[in-house]
This record gives sequence, structure tokens and C-alpha cells, in this order.
Amino acid sequence: MINPDEKFELLTDLYELTMTASYFENGMAETATFSLFIRKYPSGRAYFVAAGLEQFLDYAANFQFSESDLTFLDRTSLFSDDFLDYLKTMRFTGSVDALAEGEIFFRDEPILEVTAPIIEAQILETFVINTINLQSMIATKAARCVHAAAGRRLVDFSLRRAHGTDAGLKVARSSYIAGFVATSNVLAGKVYGIPISGTMAHSYISSFGDELEAFRAFARSFPKKTILLIDTYDTIAGARKAAKVAQEMAKEGHKLLGVRLDSGDMTDLSRQVRNILDEAGLKDVEIFASSTFDEYKIDRAIKEGASIDAFGVGTKMGVSADAPYFDIVYKLVQYGERPIMKLSTGKVNLAGKKQVFRKIDRNGRFTEDVIGTRDETIESASPLLEPVIQGGKLLRGHPPLKEIRERFRKNFAALDEKYKALHDAQFYPVKLSAHLKEVQEASSG
Amino acid sequence: MINPDEKFELLTDLYELTMTASYFENGMAETATFSLFIRKYPSGRAYFVAAGLEQFLDYAANFQFSESDLTFLDRTSLFSDDFLDYLKTMRFTGSVDALAEGEIFFRDEPILEVTAPIIEAQILETFVINTINLQSMIATKAARCVHAAAGRRLVDFSLRRAHGTDAGLKVARSSYIAGFVATSNVLAGKVYGIPISGTMAHSYISSFGDELEAFRAFARSFPKKTILLIDTYDTIAGARKAAKVAQEMAKEGHKLLGVRLDSGDMTDLSRQVRNILDEAGLKDVEIFASSTFDEYKIDRAIKEGASIDAFGVGTKMGVSADAPYFDIVYKLVQYGERPIMKLSTGKVNLAGKKQVFRKIDRNGRFTEDVIGTRDETIESASPLLEPVIQGGKLLRGHPPLKEIRERFRKNFAALDEKYKALHDAQFYPVKLSAHLKEVQEASSG
Repeated sequence: MINPDEKFELLTDLYELTMTASYFENGMAETATFSLFIRKYPSGRAYFVAAGLEQFLDYAANFQFSESDLTFLDRTSLFSDDFLDYLKTMRFTGSVDALAEGEIFFRDEPILEVTAPIIEAQILETFVINTINLQSMIATKAARCVHAAAGRRLVDFSLRRAHGTDAGLKVARSSYIAGFVATSNVLAGKVYGIPISGTMAHSYISSFGDELEAFRAFARSFPKKTILLIDTYDTIAGARKAAKVAQEMAKEGHKLLGVRLDSGDMTDLSRQVRNILDEAGLKDVEIFASSTFDEYKIDRAIKEGASIDAFGVGTKMGVSADAPYFDIVYKLVQYGERPIMKLSTGKVNLAGKKQVFRKIDRNGRFTEDVIGTRDETIESASPLLEPVIQGGKLLRGHPPLKEIRERFRKNFAALDEKYKALHDAQFYPVKLSAHLKEVQEASSG
Repeated sequence: MINPDEKFELLTDLYELTMTASYFENGMAETATFSLFIRKYPSGRAYFVAAGLEQFLDYAANFQFSESDLTFLDRTSLFSDDFLDYLKTMRFTGSVDALAEGEIFFRDEPILEVTAPIIEAQILETFVINTINLQSMIATKAARCVHAAAGRRLVDFSLRRAHGTDAGLKVARSSYIAGFVATSNVLAGKVYGIPISGTMAHSYISSFGDELEAFRAFARSFPKKTILLIDTYDTIAGARKAAKVAQEMAKEGHKLLGVRLDSGDMTDLSRQVRNILDEAGLKDVEIFASSTFDEYKIDRAIKEGASIDAFGVGTKMGVSADAPYFDIVYKLVQYGERPIMKLSTGKVNLAGKKQVFRKIDRNGRFTEDVIGTRDETIESASPLLEPVIQGGKLLRGHPPLKEIRERFRKNFAALDEKYKALHDAQFYPVKLSAHLKEVQEASSG
């Protein structure tokens, strides 16, 4: 198992180190700007949600190879002693301009730009893509689920099939940013302060053998926090037993919070179960459903009239199953005074240091973005990239997660339905400023 | 950022803890057996590769809540002091029987079974699924790529779009088990001893501006390890410049290892580039290709006659893009003396403690598996689940990664082509023993 005090300076592609060694040996020390952006919308998506900046900023501001890292690099016989000595004292001394977490952004818009001596900016590439790709992808998928749920509560149930331990944590964080109300992941509760939530598994019912006995035992253990899983054997029979236990709990002054459906036809079953609960005088016992939901299945269930108060959303959100990666890249856009545009087949990037400007109408709705150069001003439009690191130092503490979540909520409300529809969403208008176009023409010539 | 000494006992679904609290309070303390298995083949798959056991065994054998974990749980106000006291001294005291890493297995076959007092076995659920799902899924995807490559070398390039830091490491480990020869992930080299490999990025070329100058600079820095990326501007012109640099290197007594293609039509370009290199007398300069390869694209390129010596395989392998999760579950199959079969809609599991028996013909080919009860013997068939933890203690050290890789290589060679074909693979025959069938009939009655 990985040493728990291992840091992640070496969690990088080898070529970042061989390139930087070659920059070092060839005296390539000018200031470079790299831009992180997404080149294409994956199927069905027409907006993105920024997440993951906090983890990248901590990485950059604390970047420092350990003794054991340097010993390992030395053992590869790839690097000169001079270069290894340089790495020993190397810190990130540059600047980062970035979208705040919770901002909505679009194709080709820089999520962040790093400006630093080229070695320092190059060496961050692998980690910045790794952490921002995952978190923005999950925040985007989770936002689509929140949108589909139209006000119903969503809980992250994805930990078991998230890709490893780090993804389990970051999925909880990103889905909370996008409006999920809680996670089943206890460590995410401890580390990030996200509300935690849970019910019971089929194994709990099976171990008792008798479903009614299992329900009663759980209600005794958690009289204020019981949600009963009712599909272990037969959902309708399970619902009747849950109603019985709810009535028994009521006599003791307690309230059954809800029942959970985990298999079968969610629309049909939820309505039958609602009737059973209502007829037993249990109108405020909620129905919780968790059965391979994603934004499409949530939307369908609601449109069909399912009687579901809250959804457990698991695997398909936690791995962004229909788009498990974004076409996100970190490209050199300026070296010294020279803006850089790469020109191979179909892979053009916008040269130069940039800024994203957003136009908002008098009702607070987003109307159009303009990608401009970093130093220009665009009338009636607000710049979105903010300086977050200068001279290698963080310019501010990290915003609390709740503040990020609230920022996203406000932004999402300001984005018109036509741009966030689950099906056939329109592409939001993003233009280039006249000045940025001039830079492109000059650098492609 | 997560505290680097955080352990993962709390990386669990809240319901594991509420259920175990309720087991504790209701005196449910009998020995339980849980079975980990995959219920369905994802699209295109007809076998699985076992990986991830080492990380699970370390977790189980060292399971112990920290003081800060217990403080956090106390603050949730969900748990009694008695239960928290119990958790404080709780260790895993049970046993684990498991397939060795590198074994090939099939739908419904137990990957491992955990037998322990029910609380101890239940509480491992989330982590065991999390770590074995990811690693077996990636090993399976990587095995398909290795099979398609038909002897050509594959290198893991997926770190940047793997889902987080832990996935980045585990993807490197799992793909190496399946036969990849190296990874770009430097930390995976340090932690697991996997060979590391890399070339250069477009930013390296762009920063110099002049492609030839960039090639020469890199060759000066790494005269024994140079692979030149030739598609930054125009691949054919890039190949000619690389040939020139190779000839210059030869005069200094050095050898260009290869060139890399990263965009465009791989078949056509690789053949043109091969001709350019051959005509320049550079028959042993290899062509390395890295352009959204997965098993299907590798297979197509080879069938079309592409001239590619090695593939960099990135995102699509590293996130198992066409099947980013498996339908893997951990189910209670026995409690005390009672075998358990869950009966809700379409979700049956095989009751009782089990063993997987494999029949092998005189040529060493796999012919059939039989799932039996743990204690039976099946003629001319070898049991695959081995005891790996007993009384909470590891029974052996972990096998070296190279040994696991070699085990997989031998196993894969013994599996007939019809079961591992990329398209329309047949399902391998898996039967239930007569004894196991009796157990099922007895427990469903």
C-alpha cells in the first residue's frame, strides 16, 4: 500500500520531468503561460461546472520534492546532478488566474491559466488536469441530476464504485457543490463537513431472516433516523410491514422518516407504496429511491408521475458513466513575449494570456461570453478569471464549501433553460474579442 | 486538502456503521460470510481479471478506527457510547478466501469471501468493492488492449484523466499486471517499481518555436532516451526532421529510439513515416503511437497494416471508457448455519460458502469452471479461492507485482481465443456443482 505520507509531486507523467530537465539544460527559462480548457462538449453536455481548484492551488503553493522523491529520480539514471539539485530547491513562484469553483463555463474558455518560468508551469500539467478533470466532470454530471430532480433531494451513493479512494472523496465534494444535499461517504463528512446520510442494506434484512423483525430492530436502534429498505423480498409486502412498524413507532412517540425502494419499476412501485403509506395515515413518511439513477432516469420517473421524495444517486453519477472523461488539455499559449498557437490536425488553441468576460442582462440572466486577452476591458461584461496565486503565494484562504455551493446555485439559476436542457440543449454563445482575434492572426502567420 | 495521514476506515457508506450499530445493540454476533462477485458482463466483455486484493488485505488486516475517527462519529450523535467503545478496540478477526491477483474469473464466481462476526464482515463492504471494482475493471480493459496489440508493446499514458490520484496509481498497477510494459506515472514507478516511460509534449516543441531546434535540444539532453514527437505542425515534415536528427545523433555514437505520432490517421501516417525512416537508413528507429487508442482502435490499426511498434494507451483504458463500472456486489450468503439467498426482483445470489473449481485439459487449456460449496472436492478440478487471512492475520506476504503479472500471462495464454475475442466472444462454461444446487434449493424453500 502507498505510504500514507507520500505526497504527489511525482504523480506526474515522466515527460514533464524529462522536458523540464531539457529546458534546464538548454537555458529555457523565460516566463510561460499555460491554459487549461475543454475542447469539446461530451455527448449531451452544453455547459461545464468548475470544481477542483482548491486541491490544485494547495498542490502548486506547496510544491516541493521530498528527499525520497529525489532519491528515486536519481536512481532512474535519467537526470543530471545539476538538475536534481535544482529540483531540490524548486518551488512554484508564478501566478495562477482561475475561475472560482462553482462557476459555469463553456467549451474553449480557460478554466485557469498558469504563468511562471516554463519549468514551474510545465511541471504542474499532469496534476492540474487530473484533479480538475475529475471534479469538474462530476460537478457537471451532478448538476444535470439536480436539474432533472426539479427540487427533489439528491444524495451521493457512489462511493463503492467510484474509481478509488481519492475519487470517492472528490465525487462527494463535487456533487455537493452542484446541489446534492448529502453523501453516504462518512470520510467526506469528516474531511469536508458534508452532511452524511444512509439507510440499510439487504444484508441487514437477510441476517434477521424475518423482515418485520429486522425493521423493528433497526427502529429500536435509530428511533429518530430510520429509513426502511423494503424490497428485499417483495416490495409491496415490505411496504405494508414498514407501515406497521411506523404505527408502532408512533405509539412510542417516534416517527419513521421514510422507506427505500432499490429495484423494480420505480414509477409503478413508488405510487403503490405511496398509497399504502397514505392509507395507513403516514402521509409524511417519505419515499426514497435508489436504483441506477442518473439525470435521464430521474427525469423519466418524475415525468411519469413517480411518487419519490428523494433519490440516492450512485454509480452513474460517480463515474460520469456516459462521459467518463472530458477532452481537457493544458496548453502552452505564451512563451516570453510570443503568443503560441499549435497547428497540428484539428488541435488549435487560443494563443496568448486570456480572460473570460460574461455579459448579464438586467434580470441577471447570462446572455453571452466573450473570450478576450487578459489585459483588455469589455464593456458591460465582468471578467471571470481571478488572480488566486501570485509570486507563488495564495492570495486568499479557500472559500468554504457552502459558499461554493451557493455560488453554483445562483449561477445555475441565471443560465437559461435552453442551455441546460437534458436533451438537445443549445450551445451558449461564446465569442472572441476583436483584440484576441488579432493575437490569433498574428501568431498563426 | 485531506490530511495526508488520514486512513480509510471512514471511507465507507454511513449505513455500514448504522447497520453494525444495530447488529451490536440487537446482539447479532454470529459468524457471517459475504461473497464478492460480478453479476453481469458489461458490453463486449466475457472474462474478468482479478486485481486489487493486496490493497484490500492490507485494509482488513490493519483495520482500526483512529481517535479522530471516533471523535467525528461521536459528534454525529448517531451512535451510543457503548458502540463507540466497541469500535475503539474492534479489529478484523475473521478469514478471507480469495482468488489470487492475476487470476481470470467469470460472472457469478466469487472473487473473494469474507467470514467473520457479522459486524466485522459488514463494515468492510464499501472499501472492498471500491478497490476491487476499480482494479479488476482496469486489468480487464488493459488485458483486452494487450490481446489486441498481438505482441506489440503498450505503455500506460492515462494518469492525467484517471479519476484522481489513487486511480492514477491503481490504473498503472492494474495495467502492468495485465501486460503493459511501462507507465508514464512516475509515482507508480516509485511506489510499485513499475518501469516508467515518456517522450515529450507539444509544449516542448512550441516553446522552442523551431521544431528542428527542439529535436536537437532534446537529443542533447537525453542522447540515450530520445523519442521525438513529430506531429506538432506537420507529421511528414516532422518525420523528415527527426530522420535528420537521428543521423546527426548517429555521428555522435547515439541512437534515436523512436518517433511519436499523436494525431491524424494512424495507419496512413505510420506507413509514410516508416518509409521516410527506412529510406534514411533508420530501420531500427521505432514508431510510437498515442492517439485515443483502446482495444478496438489498436485492433483496427494492426489489421489495416499500420506500422506501429508500440502504443501509448491513455484515457480510454484508464477510465475503462466503454464500461466505467462493473455490476460488482458484496452479498451476505451465510449467517450462522443458515445459507442466505436474496430474492427480490432479478437479484438472486448463490447462497452458502463457495469455492471455484477450474478444469484444465492435458494441453493446459481452461475447459470449464464449477462453482461448488467451500468444503467439497471436485474431481479433476483445482480450487481457485485460497485462504489469505485467518484469525485476522495475513497468511503470507504479498506476491511481487512481477509474479502477479506472470501469473496473468500464463492464465491468459490458457484461455481459448473464442472466449477472449474482442468481438462476439463466447461465454465460458461455468456450472454449479450438484452439492451447491442442493444448498440453493434448501435455502430458497
